[in-house]
Amino acid sequence: MGPEEFRAAGHELIDWIADYRARIPQLPVQAQVSPGEVAAKLSARAPEQAEPFSHVLADLDGVVVPGVTQVQHPHYFGWFPSNASLASVLGDLATSGLGALGITWQSAPALTEVEEVVVDWLRELTALPKSWKGAIQDTASSACLVALLAARERATNYSEARGGLQAENAPLTVYTTEHAHSSIAKGVALAGFGRDNLRLVGVDPVTYAMRPEALAAALEADVAKGLRPAAVVASIGTTGTTAVDPLAQIIPLARRYGMWVHVDAAMAGSALLLPEMRWLADGVEGADSLAWNPHKWLGTVLDCSLLYVADPGHLIRVMSTNPSYLRSAVDGQVTQYKDWGIPLGRRFRALKLWFHLRLDGAEAIRARLRRDLDNARWLAEQVSARPGWRVLAPANLQTVVLRHEPAGLVSGTGAVLDADALNAHTLSWADQVNASGAALVTPSLLDGTWSVRVSIGAESTERQDVEELWDLLKQAAETNGTRSAA
Amino acid sequence: MGPEEFRAAGHELIDWIADYRARIPQLPVQAQVSPGEVAAKLSARAPEQAEPFSHVLADLDGVVVPGVTQVQHPHYFGWFPSNASLASVLGDLATSGLGALGITWQSAPALTEVEEVVVDWLRELTALPKSWKGAIQDTASSACLVALLAARERATNYSEARGGLQAENAPLTVYTTEHAHSSIAKGVALAGFGRDNLRLVGVDPVTYAMRPEALAAALEADVAKGLRPAAVVASIGTTGTTAVDPLAQIIPLARRYGMWVHVDAAMAGSALLLPEMRWLADGVEGADSLAWNPHKWLGTVLDCSLLYVADPGHLIRVMSTNPSYLRSAVDGQVTQYKDWGIPLGRRFRALKLWFHLRLDGAEAIRARLRRDLDNARWLAEQVSARPGWRVLAPANLQTVVLRHEPAGLVSGTGAVLDADALNAHTLSWADQVNASGAALVTPSLLDGTWSVRVSIGAESTERQDVEELWDLLKQAAETNGTRSAA
Repeated sequence: MGPEEFRAAGHELIDWIADYRARIPQLPVQAQVSPGEVAAKLSARAPEQAEPFSHVLADLDGVVVPGVTQVQHPHYFGWFPSNASLASVLGDLATSGLGALGITWQSAPALTEVEEVVVDWLRELTALPKSWKGAIQDTASSACLVALLAARERATNYSEARGGLQAENAPLTVYTTEHAHSSIAKGVALAGFGRDNLRLVGVDPVTYAMRPEALAAALEADVAKGLRPAAVVASIGTTGTTAVDPLAQIIPLARRYGMWVHVDAAMAGSALLLPEMRWLADGVEGADSLAWNPHKWLGTVLDCSLLYVADPGHLIRVMSTNPSYLRSAVDGQVTQYKDWGIPLGRRFRALKLWFHLRLDGAEAIRARLRRDLDNARWLAEQVSARPGWRVLAPANLQTVVLRHEPAGLVSGTGAVLDADALNAHTLSWADQVNASGAALVTPSLLDGTWSVRVSIGAESTERQDVEELWDLLKQAAETNGTRSAA
Repeated sequence: MGPEEFRAAGHELIDWIADYRARIPQLPVQAQVSPGEVAAKLSARAPEQAEPFSHVLADLDGVVVPGVTQVQHPHYFGWFPSNASLASVLGDLATSGLGALGITWQSAPALTEVEEVVVDWLRELTALPKSWKGAIQDTASSACLVALLAARERATNYSEARGGLQAENAPLTVYTTEHAHSSIAKGVALAGFGRDNLRLVGVDPVTYAMRPEALAAALEADVAKGLRPAAVVASIGTTGTTAVDPLAQIIPLARRYGMWVHVDAAMAGSALLLPEMRWLADGVEGADSLAWNPHKWLGTVLDCSLLYVADPGHLIRVMSTNPSYLRSAVDGQVTQYKDWGIPLGRRFRALKLWFHLRLDGAEAIRARLRRDLDNARWLAEQVSARPGWRVLAPANLQTVVLRHEPAGLVSGTGAVLDADALNAHTLSWADQVNASGAALVTPSLLDGTWSVRVSIGAESTERQDVEELWDLLKQAAETNGTRSAA
């Protein structure tokens, strides 16, 4: 395809996207397709001859859109927001159009330097320590693995350069809570620590935040057994309940044991743009690394995760390679992002952040974040005020964890009396909401019982959408057939 | 930014990209900027207020384009091709415009199912085993790490679920050659094997391919010492010289020791679209995994790497997580790609492959690949035929490794007589070519001496461009001042 053919098709596609974005409110939120239904509509073999663009565009309408859960929908309240702001979509288009290759500074100096600048813009906007340096990763999962590998290597005085982790004697241990994101346990497993050496530290029964006393006790016990505490992963804003582990107490404790502190702020990073929300990160200046995802609430189109580190030199020592074909005369003077993460080849991801911040402006982004926090507070108040409903965890951010508790299933003090019936009820009404396509919420286990997460923050979600959701939830739960069956 | 504002800006950006692509031949290939020059042109702080799109577009012209090495240029012969076909750029734009969230099948069924179908299209186009399944990863570096983690876990009977690699006794060893990509050694280090347990097996002095007898000897010696061979990484098309390790001999040997075989076909995967090139992968059906990058020569815009595995069940066992908020009723019936790699959140990358293959067609892609192979053969012939020049390795693919050897620096049989002078000469003339902006080639060490890699295969590179390059190389090397200084 040459530039002129691209120009014609590109204009069509831009119009298609603008139209699609405008009609999202009319689409079902959850994709209404069965397993295999999308695949069955596709050709089983690659085409030998070029197809006209109109065929591809028709398949976007006929096959792809109905097969996608509309996370840009104003009634999307599932998982976490996954906003793809149109400003960032333009930035990403520029990235692909340029087709730059990020392997070294030399291969695309602007790819490196725009990233350095924009990552520092975001550091300043979130008031993270001035000395920290950052790099764009694909996801917080990868960023966490990178942090755990860095922790492992610091704890073993760089065993990778010798016999590796397998040559070490006393096992290294890692600490987090059962509310930490699943990628933490995955990272611990992949980094070779072994799940037996992952400690799930106790949490406060009301806030679900890590209890520093429980961490202290776990550390003492492990050290007494001859184990070597290597890392703690603290979450500010867990996925289940947006619980906030108290960094100000955890970090000094971890420091005493020489441990690496990684802060998972995948969701809450965006909130740090608001001065009134910076309490979430109190004490963060003592951490070694922090990851947050602009591709969530901030709205820089997936995938865009930031990993900040206090000491990039350490990261580079763990991650660097230096084959002859990648060397250049300026190597000592420039940042080589290949040594800040796992992949060698990197996309020019900084452009989507750059476009997003420049075309939307920080002020409007902050106003939107505040709108969402207000909406979450409003919903939590409605839920708390209505008999038979309960908010199950502090709504620290924009996510409300709630449950409809029909009479007889939960005691006046909140003790679950009939877990099976309550679970059946919760899953039934949540499924009814989701299957209808009118809105999407996420069932989630809390203290062993199903609850429903309402995560507010799609770019297009206004107060009225939250009001409509609340009507829908009341309608679904309070008239749910399973309730009487139970 | 709303849909109508996006529509207007999007049309401008499409025109900008079409115009930019058309004028690439007029741009210098290597970015002509000094360290810090791009950053100095950018604002030090994020904008509070939205900027007009025209400002951003002006910065693309004034700051970004001059700061990017033009790997889409017809005179780009550096590293490896990194084609960003305009058809795939459209697919990537559709991905961003849709803003789908790939965390589970449920979050975007089409994201999973289009990926399954398109990855199978490419499996069939490359004649890889019918039973193999694949997933899109960001890069071959990540894919290799995933394969090494899978190898580690198979060798330790899934130690990650217990005490981890650190609880194992006899060290696991990994085998490759010194010509393998730098990501292999990095993967070995990150997976915790330790660099001491990475064996660089001897290569043939002419082809630079792994010597099966040397592998056999290394395995025997290690097993006699009580070590446990866990994996071999064989390259088909090394980065330095496109050497092809003989899979048909390596794999049966590895099988005898129960080792995991990962095939790094990052570059050569594209060549497998051509039946006449399938000898590269002879014997591959016995491998456990293979990675190749459509974002290289094939031309699907970065980042797009395919990881195929013989047994996805094993991969899933190593990589899976199952938090409550990601469960759904269809979990047993669908593919959950989060369990096929490191990141949880995934972009809808399959669209760019789908658009690329449909809008260009397999036949035209094959013709382009054949054109590039012909051009490489032509260049190798010219170099071999000209006194004072030498082709240093078999041009198995589209890359020619060459050297200009002034009289007195190399003997008639090819022995280097004055390495320092030869290196100074080579680096000097290559640097002269690159600094001029007229073309880009990559200096690379081979047998301890600098050579020059000419990697043909930018989408726009025709025979005439290769002829112009050859004239340029002759001119630069044969009149190079350093030569007489030496």
